[in-house]
Amino acid sequence: MKIALAQLNYHIGNFESNTQKIIDAINRARTQGADLVVFAELAVCGYPPRDFLEFTEFLELCESSVQDIAAACHGIACILGTPTRNPKTEGKDLFNSACFIEDGEIKSIVNKALLPTYDVFDEYRYFEPSAEFNCVDFKGCKIALTICEDLWNINDNPLYIAAPMDQLIEEKPDLMINIAASPFAYNHDDNRVKVLSDNSRKYSLPLLYVNQVGAQTEIIFDGGSFVFNEEGEILDQLKYFEEDLRIYEFAGGKIQDLTPVPYNPLPDIDQIHQGLLLGIRDYFTKSGFTQAVLGLSGGIDSAIVCALAAEALGPENVTAVLMPSKFSTDHSIKDAMDLVNNLGCKHYVVPIKEAADAFERMLEPAFKGLPFNITEENIQARCRAVIVMAFSNKFGYILLNTSNKSECAVGYGTLYGDMAGAISVLGDVYKTQVYELANHINREREIIPQNSIVKPPSAELRPGQKDSDSLPDYDILDRLLYQYVELKKSSRDIIAQGFDEELVRKVIKMVNKAEFKRYQTPPILRVSPKAFGMGRRMPIVGKYLS
Amino acid sequence: MKIALAQLNYHIGNFESNTQKIIDAINRARTQGADLVVFAELAVCGYPPRDFLEFTEFLELCESSVQDIAAACHGIACILGTPTRNPKTEGKDLFNSACFIEDGEIKSIVNKALLPTYDVFDEYRYFEPSAEFNCVDFKGCKIALTICEDLWNINDNPLYIAAPMDQLIEEKPDLMINIAASPFAYNHDDNRVKVLSDNSRKYSLPLLYVNQVGAQTEIIFDGGSFVFNEEGEILDQLKYFEEDLRIYEFAGGKIQDLTPVPYNPLPDIDQIHQGLLLGIRDYFTKSGFTQAVLGLSGGIDSAIVCALAAEALGPENVTAVLMPSKFSTDHSIKDAMDLVNNLGCKHYVVPIKEAADAFERMLEPAFKGLPFNITEENIQARCRAVIVMAFSNKFGYILLNTSNKSECAVGYGTLYGDMAGAISVLGDVYKTQVYELANHINREREIIPQNSIVKPPSAELRPGQKDSDSLPDYDILDRLLYQYVELKKSSRDIIAQGFDEELVRKVIKMVNKAEFKRYQTPPILRVSPKAFGMGRRMPIVGKYLS
Repeated sequence: MKIALAQLNYHIGNFESNTQKIIDAINRARTQGADLVVFAELAVCGYPPRDFLEFTEFLELCESSVQDIAAACHGIACILGTPTRNPKTEGKDLFNSACFIEDGEIKSIVNKALLPTYDVFDEYRYFEPSAEFNCVDFKGCKIALTICEDLWNINDNPLYIAAPMDQLIEEKPDLMINIAASPFAYNHDDNRVKVLSDNSRKYSLPLLYVNQVGAQTEIIFDGGSFVFNEEGEILDQLKYFEEDLRIYEFAGGKIQDLTPVPYNPLPDIDQIHQGLLLGIRDYFTKSGFTQAVLGLSGGIDSAIVCALAAEALGPENVTAVLMPSKFSTDHSIKDAMDLVNNLGCKHYVVPIKEAADAFERMLEPAFKGLPFNITEENIQARCRAVIVMAFSNKFGYILLNTSNKSECAVGYGTLYGDMAGAISVLGDVYKTQVYELANHINREREIIPQNSIVKPPSAELRPGQKDSDSLPDYDILDRLLYQYVELKKSSRDIIAQGFDEELVRKVIKMVNKAEFKRYQTPPILRVSPKAFGMGRRMPIVGKYLS
Repeated sequence: MKIALAQLNYHIGNFESNTQKIIDAINRARTQGADLVVFAELAVCGYPPRDFLEFTEFLELCESSVQDIAAACHGIACILGTPTRNPKTEGKDLFNSACFIEDGEIKSIVNKALLPTYDVFDEYRYFEPSAEFNCVDFKGCKIALTICEDLWNINDNPLYIAAPMDQLIEEKPDLMINIAASPFAYNHDDNRVKVLSDNSRKYSLPLLYVNQVGAQTEIIFDGGSFVFNEEGEILDQLKYFEEDLRIYEFAGGKIQDLTPVPYNPLPDIDQIHQGLLLGIRDYFTKSGFTQAVLGLSGGIDSAIVCALAAEALGPENVTAVLMPSKFSTDHSIKDAMDLVNNLGCKHYVVPIKEAADAFERMLEPAFKGLPFNITEENIQARCRAVIVMAFSNKFGYILLNTSNKSECAVGYGTLYGDMAGAISVLGDVYKTQVYELANHINREREIIPQNSIVKPPSAELRPGQKDSDSLPDYDILDRLLYQYVELKKSSRDIIAQGFDEELVRKVIKMVNKAEFKRYQTPPILRVSPKAFGMGRRMPIVGKYLS
């Protein structure tokens, strides 16, 4: 039996495109002699569909898409992820399902049992967990078909009580197939390999695993679908961050003609680089835009976003706007221009002095000689937002936000100023990782000007300002933030690790106080296991611990 | 046996304040002879604590607060809502619990079974549903104690399979007590009364119901705790939108000394008015601010927000900034000044022409004579945001957003412009309701200038502009939006109701296209069953139906 794994890039709610893509893959797989083609979790509608699932019309479109796909399934079977309705009147209305389709008909439906609700996931909001587990029979082969986290209860994971495979194994299946929508984080693939490999070994069965690929606003799927043998060894892996379709021969209880290969993941920074490129590209492709605009300061963050945008969209589709203030240094403008020249993207220079001065004059009667402070710093940042948003509105460009995760965390940024944008490219990349990324981008030739990398970071909103006036060194700050944001440690535990007590309390307080700002920031491309946004839901008006 | 119901206003994460409030209520109840005092769901930490629940330190503070409260429980027992840890290694780490505390000790713990995950709720993200149901024994009385939605499976509600009361009734309880954190929506109290009354009648038991009161950022709790007799009749009701503590005598299976009273809810518009006042007041009180600032246009929306802020915070704590553009009409300034004079709040006049002209000059080299369009309209709106945010930054004022729900829905507003603010006051109030609210506020004397109410709505961003140039009449628009946003109807279903087909498609498309804007808007005080924000989670880059 020949089984094709189809790792595709879906678009949430775009039934026409998803259906066509799926049918094309079915036809390609059939042409190549496949008996069965496997698609990812919720392939029909894209993942995560969120509250679209509460619209009857959306469900009807899922159903008619499944019918159209089924009609294309002749001479080949397919496994297809889709929401289906719960026929019982008890429980939630829907299941997260895998349809087994053969001869133009849905022959059986497998429903997901272990519904994630942590971080970015909300599956229990929509779906009833399955309590029934049955293998699928196809051409004399018994397939233990599961959906994503239904395999994650391995190794005594205490989160889940049920263990679908423990029930399916009773039927003595020949093969495991798992369809997933498992989002990218730079460390997540290691976990996936371990969990999947452990399953193969525990149940002594080969395992075919199909993930989605592509970005859905902030959530990036990295693909990298796997084939394991019954000893938990990797036999093959599909591409990362790209669509792929491969066919495997399964016979005599084994995947044929393949020998184990070592697990050889990309280094974290490569993964982040590839993930961000896909995130940018899909934001534009799927929202129907082609051109990006951003403010270019001469600093490292905006330089990297500009370089990534140029790589993802083509430099001809990127417009950099240099907006020097009276506090900008000459080298900033030179560094920004060097980057523009390295990339070959369009640029404009729009000094902000005239507007900033106008606001200061207009506010003088109210502010009556009060000293220059953060208010005037923010006015400059907001003048820049007015300018780049004018480019966005006038020319239909999408504004890319250039804030990094360290700044987002401590609120070192101006709401409606440099925190503006349609999508945040670096909001899940700590400043220390930003430097790594710069060196990675420069690995073959200097793209990011060396001076943008080596000079001390500064917002240049007052004379001689440096980030280090307000913030600890980024290598300390980022390690501290990781403990609090990613690991949710208390100040007590962080101090016990040797961090300065006063610093810990100050930084945690800054993180907590910035919650109201983060609520209004753009969606952030998620590359870590804990990005700001949907995956971290903190009260705004709460009394925070510190 | 005397039972006190304590309807208190908690502050999420403010353990010191919540604990003190609870102990004060225990002492007051004891002084008045109560044997038992009942507090709301998650009273110890406030509701909803969201991802605070993932921080170990937060749970430790819940536990130490419960210990402190228990130590105050001598000569009186209490029922106290708190998260507790799941002692089993299987399942989620926490329960949403009611502790029964007597003689300084936790005597028993009841856990919630039916965990809401719809709209603003995320309980399954944190809590394991209970599978065990036992009554609580106190002074020879058997109490069927449940938490919030554990009573909502009445009347064959298909959402839930389990029915905690159906199991508890087996123990032949004498009394039902339900502790809740049931958020306000203008139509929600009617449902609550029906569900609670149906429970009393179904199980032939008196029911004491304690809700929270107070606002937690966008979510408002309206209090209005109830006492029902065993025939489902209302015997008493605690105050709406205020703290309250009342004591009831329970003996011989009945609540004593009370005769049934009719259910007499406030009209919707009164409820919305009271809810918004509480929402504004608690945002300021709980975040530690006293002063508000807002842009006042002369139109009805900003006039109402200004009036509500003056009522909630005192006019001396409200600063209105009039920011006429070259397109503002004389009557707008007069209408705004009339309001300022009616309310007695502070005001400034800061015309925006100088800054708007500066931006247009600065952008001229890039825009090269392209005609005035929505770009220049947005520049004006963004100049206003720069100005009011400067007031916010300079003086520590909180910026109130003045957009209404109709505008939010169709994206009729400028991101980083009039969509700015720390909290949106009217973002869940349709324009037609805004008019009702104006008339309600004016019920005794003219506060909102009549001219602001009767003149055609306009953003005044180009000569002679009116909302009706871009939008249908609000009475049609709002009915259409209600069908799509609240009821999630398809265009097909809405058209079948008699709405114009072209209009339906246009409006739904506008709603969908505005998703990226709404993602970045401030939290919106929730007064309806479906507010924009946490309770409506739509993809941004999705292909929408229309």
